[in-house]
Amino acid sequence: MKAIDIIKKKRDGQELSRAEIDFFINEYTAGNMPDYQAAALLMAIYFQKMTKNETVSLTQAIINSGDKINLAEINGIKVDKHSTGGVGDKTTIALAPIVASLGAPVAKMSGRGLGHTGGTLDKLEAIPGFKIDLEKSQFISNVNNHKIAISGQTAKITPADKKLYSLRDVTATVDNISLIASSIMSKKLASGADAIVLDVKTGSGAFMKSLHESFSLAKEMVDIGNAMGKNTVALITDMDQPLGNAVGNSLEVIEAIETLKGNGPADFYELCLELGSQMLILAKIASDEKEAKEMIKSSIENRSALNKLKELIEIQGGDSRVIDDYSLLPQAKYKKEIKLKHTGYVKSINAEFVGRAALALGAGRDTMESKIDLSAGIILNKKVGDKFTENDSIATLFYNDETKFEEAEELIIKAYSLSDDECHPKKLMHGLIVKDDIVRF
Amino acid sequence: MKAIDIIKKKRDGQELSRAEIDFFINEYTAGNMPDYQAAALLMAIYFQKMTKNETVSLTQAIINSGDKINLAEINGIKVDKHSTGGVGDKTTIALAPIVASLGAPVAKMSGRGLGHTGGTLDKLEAIPGFKIDLEKSQFISNVNNHKIAISGQTAKITPADKKLYSLRDVTATVDNISLIASSIMSKKLASGADAIVLDVKTGSGAFMKSLHESFSLAKEMVDIGNAMGKNTVALITDMDQPLGNAVGNSLEVIEAIETLKGNGPADFYELCLELGSQMLILAKIASDEKEAKEMIKSSIENRSALNKLKELIEIQGGDSRVIDDYSLLPQAKYKKEIKLKHTGYVKSINAEFVGRAALALGAGRDTMESKIDLSAGIILNKKVGDKFTENDSIATLFYNDETKFEEAEELIIKAYSLSDDECHPKKLMHGLIVKDDIVRF
Repeated sequence: MKAIDIIKKKRDGQELSRAEIDFFINEYTAGNMPDYQAAALLMAIYFQKMTKNETVSLTQAIINSGDKINLAEINGIKVDKHSTGGVGDKTTIALAPIVASLGAPVAKMSGRGLGHTGGTLDKLEAIPGFKIDLEKSQFISNVNNHKIAISGQTAKITPADKKLYSLRDVTATVDNISLIASSIMSKKLASGADAIVLDVKTGSGAFMKSLHESFSLAKEMVDIGNAMGKNTVALITDMDQPLGNAVGNSLEVIEAIETLKGNGPADFYELCLELGSQMLILAKIASDEKEAKEMIKSSIENRSALNKLKELIEIQGGDSRVIDDYSLLPQAKYKKEIKLKHTGYVKSINAEFVGRAALALGAGRDTMESKIDLSAGIILNKKVGDKFTENDSIATLFYNDETKFEEAEELIIKAYSLSDDECHPKKLMHGLIVKDDIVRF
Repeated sequence: MKAIDIIKKKRDGQELSRAEIDFFINEYTAGNMPDYQAAALLMAIYFQKMTKNETVSLTQAIINSGDKINLAEINGIKVDKHSTGGVGDKTTIALAPIVASLGAPVAKMSGRGLGHTGGTLDKLEAIPGFKIDLEKSQFISNVNNHKIAISGQTAKITPADKKLYSLRDVTATVDNISLIASSIMSKKLASGADAIVLDVKTGSGAFMKSLHESFSLAKEMVDIGNAMGKNTVALITDMDQPLGNAVGNSLEVIEAIETLKGNGPADFYELCLELGSQMLILAKIASDEKEAKEMIKSSIENRSALNKLKELIEIQGGDSRVIDDYSLLPQAKYKKEIKLKHTGYVKSINAEFVGRAALALGAGRDTMESKIDLSAGIILNKKVGDKFTENDSIATLFYNDETKFEEAEELIIKAYSLSDDECHPKKLMHGLIVKDDIVRF
């Protein structure tokens, strides 16, 4: 088998066999296939696309390139949740305690990630003392004893994905549904989940800007998961405005806690309800959505979810008093309200601009070496559909570095599109994919 | 300017500017743009094609990457001829003396080349003593004094083309008309010609197998030449069977000499007439094809073309007695006839198989390090349309290495397709492109 023949075959629109895809991934990861041949193949894939068979083979080959995590020692059906990412996405911090409190084992491996704010691990580190590096045995015993553990990834999973992603990034071959789907799914599948709920974001703050792309990516990921024998469902949810009101690490932890106290923003609460119910169904704890949603509502009303979060913080070494005393979280020195000189309605909020404002204030990182300011961020006081007057604060900015305020303020003002006429609130749920059923809401 | 943005732009089907193409070629040649980005861009070009403007810019950038040969010291209009290559193509050896004998200055830089037989330089080296490395001053004074010089390329022209071609070869991005056209034309234009006649081969033994591709390539090259202010015309000629009867270095020299003596094979003579008349028109020596062809016919009848070849051999240090004594050329030890056990007509001869047979006998080289056996080769005694009986030799094989005979014989037999019914001889001339006029014959 020769690399040039594989490139030619793909270039000419023929389907690559599993053996050919294995050859590509194995030889490339081992350094035997040079970057320039991989780059040519990736660009050919960009134009010719991949079939479902090819995408499944690619995912399998990427999984096989590294360690596979074995969670067999954990009792019950381990359902993992993955979000394609967006602005203000603090879902794991609320959702994991919810489903764990209802008996679903949550063995969550999270990342830090680049972007507007930190990843789940960064957000949890806002809680004083919270340790995110658990030994594997500790991780497993925590899930067995407490139904919940959230840890950084330590095993060397999917090295092929890391190498491929670096190359795609510099060769304009990132934007291909099959390559994105196999990259995400290989990591999830190598992490040992029994079933997967995907939260595919769509809109201005998401990687996939259009509904069409988001459904395509979701379907492709669901197909991969199911082809590998793992029950996989996907929700397509809105990221055309930020999720909830808080953007920034400490601020998002507070919003997650408030949600478990029953005071969360409507859209974020709805998302927890929807994702949570799919997780409970896959974990065979609820038999349908109606039952699952009732269970989740109760877990919030009777504070069992909040108590599970408290338990999680304690077993991972954190100070659980933060649950009732937010002043224990990192605090920003400055806090400023943004007002507009109008009266009107919010027509849209560009999530990407809000994210860039948060990044400007120090809430995220540009490179893996950047240090995050966990206290910095933004609270959006007005969301799409809300009425505002010139006296209303539309957003509150939290920061320590005064030199960045102006840039952030400008971005926030640019993010808001206004209207004199009444506007409808944005729909959160756009669709659900379960096996071959694609439901559009 | 950033490489990734140029790749994205091309990937998305937008036209690259001259500045962007210059950036690509300059940075890539200088080693500042890595191979993997160039490979991704080449594959994007493969799929999105290039506009005429882009192809002209690319050709100019490749020319600018190295030395440009200045032939201003040579009097008259220097018309160069380029063939896209095929099996049995000994055209330069007959054509250069023909047009030189009629007053057109021939300042020919040739190559060795990989393939079924050697290039023009290899063929000329079959003549004892013939020197193909002329100093530039000698080269120019030979053309001024004798109207003819044929030499190897010494200047460092088009280094970008060499680097790009090596990369295209291993990334399945060779087969793109614009990349092929700019590669060929950059070399011709950097070599200092005032006008160019292109012989674009089409058929089983050519790089371009279909008429459609051959016309496309020819048109693109004519456009590039004219856009750069050099009169350029293209003939599209047949390479579905080998050209003439001889394939192999010494054998082809003999066939070229015989053609100048008036005994050449019909197709090869016709090709010299057609290419030669275009050259004479561009050199402003003849005013139309009719006049040009009459001049060429006379130059052969009155032996002035043959005498010009003799003169060429002498001024470049060769033994001109070969003109009348072919035994002075390298001789093969073995000579064997191939006969078929049928009577019938030749329907087609796969030129590629004949070429591979010649290569098997040692007439060509696999790598630039291989040594050519100048005496080895094949004479095709029957061509398309010819009748044959079981007593007729269809081909004669010349070789020194007995172990290769069988392979070559098999390839020759495989090359011949036969018919019980009468077959028409193959048409040699398929088309002529002069500026925007495309004439199909």
